[in-house]
Amino acid sequence: MSLKDKVAIIGVGCTKFGENFNLDYKDMLVDSYTEAMEDAGIEPKDIDAAWLATAFPDMAHFEGNSGSSLAEPLNLYGRPITHVTNYCATGMDAVRNAAMAVASGNARFAYIGGVEKMRDVGPRESLIAQVVKTGHPVVGKGATAPGMFAMLETRYMAKYGVDRTPFAEVSVKNHANGSLNPKAHFGRPVTIEAVLNAPMIAYPLSLYECTPVSDGSASAIITTPEIAKSLKKDYILVKAMSLSIDAGYTPQFDKYNEFLGFKATQNAGVMAYKEAGIKNPHDEIDFAEVHDCFTITEVVNYEDLQFCRRGDGWKFVHEGRSSLQGELPVNPSGGLQSSGHPIGATGVRMVYELVTQLRGKAGKRQVKNARVGLAHNLGGPGSVASVAILARPD
Amino acid sequence: MSLKDKVAIIGVGCTKFGENFNLDYKDMLVDSYTEAMEDAGIEPKDIDAAWLATAFPDMAHFEGNSGSSLAEPLNLYGRPITHVTNYCATGMDAVRNAAMAVASGNARFAYIGGVEKMRDVGPRESLIAQVVKTGHPVVGKGATAPGMFAMLETRYMAKYGVDRTPFAEVSVKNHANGSLNPKAHFGRPVTIEAVLNAPMIAYPLSLYECTPVSDGSASAIITTPEIAKSLKKDYILVKAMSLSIDAGYTPQFDKYNEFLGFKATQNAGVMAYKEAGIKNPHDEIDFAEVHDCFTITEVVNYEDLQFCRRGDGWKFVHEGRSSLQGELPVNPSGGLQSSGHPIGATGVRMVYELVTQLRGKAGKRQVKNARVGLAHNLGGPGSVASVAILARPD
Repeated sequence: MSLKDKVAIIGVGCTKFGENFNLDYKDMLVDSYTEAMEDAGIEPKDIDAAWLATAFPDMAHFEGNSGSSLAEPLNLYGRPITHVTNYCATGMDAVRNAAMAVASGNARFAYIGGVEKMRDVGPRESLIAQVVKTGHPVVGKGATAPGMFAMLETRYMAKYGVDRTPFAEVSVKNHANGSLNPKAHFGRPVTIEAVLNAPMIAYPLSLYECTPVSDGSASAIITTPEIAKSLKKDYILVKAMSLSIDAGYTPQFDKYNEFLGFKATQNAGVMAYKEAGIKNPHDEIDFAEVHDCFTITEVVNYEDLQFCRRGDGWKFVHEGRSSLQGELPVNPSGGLQSSGHPIGATGVRMVYELVTQLRGKAGKRQVKNARVGLAHNLGGPGSVASVAILARPD
Repeated sequence: MSLKDKVAIIGVGCTKFGENFNLDYKDMLVDSYTEAMEDAGIEPKDIDAAWLATAFPDMAHFEGNSGSSLAEPLNLYGRPITHVTNYCATGMDAVRNAAMAVASGNARFAYIGGVEKMRDVGPRESLIAQVVKTGHPVVGKGATAPGMFAMLETRYMAKYGVDRTPFAEVSVKNHANGSLNPKAHFGRPVTIEAVLNAPMIAYPLSLYECTPVSDGSASAIITTPEIAKSLKKDYILVKAMSLSIDAGYTPQFDKYNEFLGFKATQNAGVMAYKEAGIKNPHDEIDFAEVHDCFTITEVVNYEDLQFCRRGDGWKFVHEGRSSLQGELPVNPSGGLQSSGHPIGATGVRMVYELVTQLRGKAGKRQVKNARVGLAHNLGGPGSVASVAILARPD
């Protein structure tokens, strides 16, 4: 059970993330698709099958609720197109399903489009409704994503005796990286004072510790390694793709975990490392894009993904080990904190970043000696996690 | 590019479809899952991966919007679960994605759960909103699914010079078949007079020519043919699974088709026949479950799927050729007309029916000499179609 060396990425594209009021859902999909197609150097007729990643079609006038939302703007009729949703792991899961189609011989060339239009609709449309409906005695009282992740941070602070500093340092690091990324939602660095003193969203998470609500689209084109090799030199190999669904923190977190990390991430990591044949993630992964929806999330991701020992995540950022020049750079793109988070696009955007870094084309944010990269998505109430490991073929 | 003989179905389950006010979304999923697991004879720990088919999570309090909605009620944590939506072809597309995972060696046993809870919510919640948003100058004026398919029927009547009779005969046939199916939403036959004189929903479609809005769930468990053979005798082989996205009838139907059938169905049929190696569908398919959301749909399906020549669909039912005792029985289950149509469940329910018929276990509605069966889903504004061809291994 493995995708290792069975799938290659030959084209990636990404729009600028942000408040794209001048671009609608379809415009953004067309833009990232066009960039990916030019990169891949194939024709639309070559695409045998496609997957669409849009997490919340109900938020934006139901665009993205079936394969038709991809077929129409891209004129990709007459072939299979599947729409996948899996909370914030939607993008990566679409890539995973496409990869299995290629690996099973059911598509020579598969296209994955991730897109989410979030800025033209009221934020109360549906995300809140989903949280409220759970019936959990605490969470059901209108708790939002910041509120729920805030509780994770307070527990972490109490358990390990740290203050807000290391979490604020995640924000500083990622905004600094994002200021080097022309496609990031935010283009400016922030100081630690600015983060600590910013308006409080849900204590202890301030405004600069929460991913913004963004519009955006990212695309990828995959094929078999054999075909990739015949087409171009700068293709990238899939070493592993995993997805794990676990209980998350609601409604029964107490039964399943200590609320100091996410079992879904832990499982997805273990599955991916096994598939890729990685024994020591810290030494064998050169850089990572991880799901930093909130600063605390990045810290527990370090631990859940075995970049450091449990309880040492705060040190991992505090000591600069995850910085762009550190021993294991995390979120060179700026992560969700700075790049933004158009939900269905995010996982595909991470693949775009990995491919760009592995090709050595990341410009000012380039990670040195990037040969093996990891991408990680975490979704829903911490219940869905996906991990991809990509590498240069040489 | 083929799934032929690479995937086997070893377990199926289905709830009664209907107004299941006593069962919630999760209850129904548990029921169909339990039946399918007992049929397959495997343990929950054996399931490597799962796919969830729910077309409109926004209609029922967002249940079914990620793999978590399957993991929680079935306690299937720690493995990948993908949520697929593709309008009314959602169920079949979930099976197709699962089949590619098995064929690619990424799952030994895969579970597919289709479920939709539609009776506890107002029907104006979202389906209407989706139609209205298209911006089409005619369709946008509040046209609903019955209204749109009604226009297909009036065009068909004008083109071929037929009255409402053959369409009413589809309803009579399917309700008669459904009266023999203990899991159908409706359990009673209807007369042709009742159909023709029933309240008009959208001329020329009367109440008894429209699929009802139903609750329900259906499940399937698949594996490789080698494993299936080692486990049991009555496994069923996948001969083909196709999906095609085409323009449908809105907003640009005039550019793409004559509005006398659906290009998506035609393409999906051609793709599936090629994959299965079928040259003459009429002679090589023993029976079919096709998407009869409205009576006119079944008639054009006959033509689109090459059961008869273009323009002869109305004769195909009128002459009894698609009846339970006819030359190519269509919708022995009662179809959507009588079985009902909990959207995400329907495609999986068709797989359940095919497997049940191919095993010779369909009781009073058993098709004679059922060795090769076809299932067909049509979704959205006629833009998404899926075809599965299943057969006995012997």
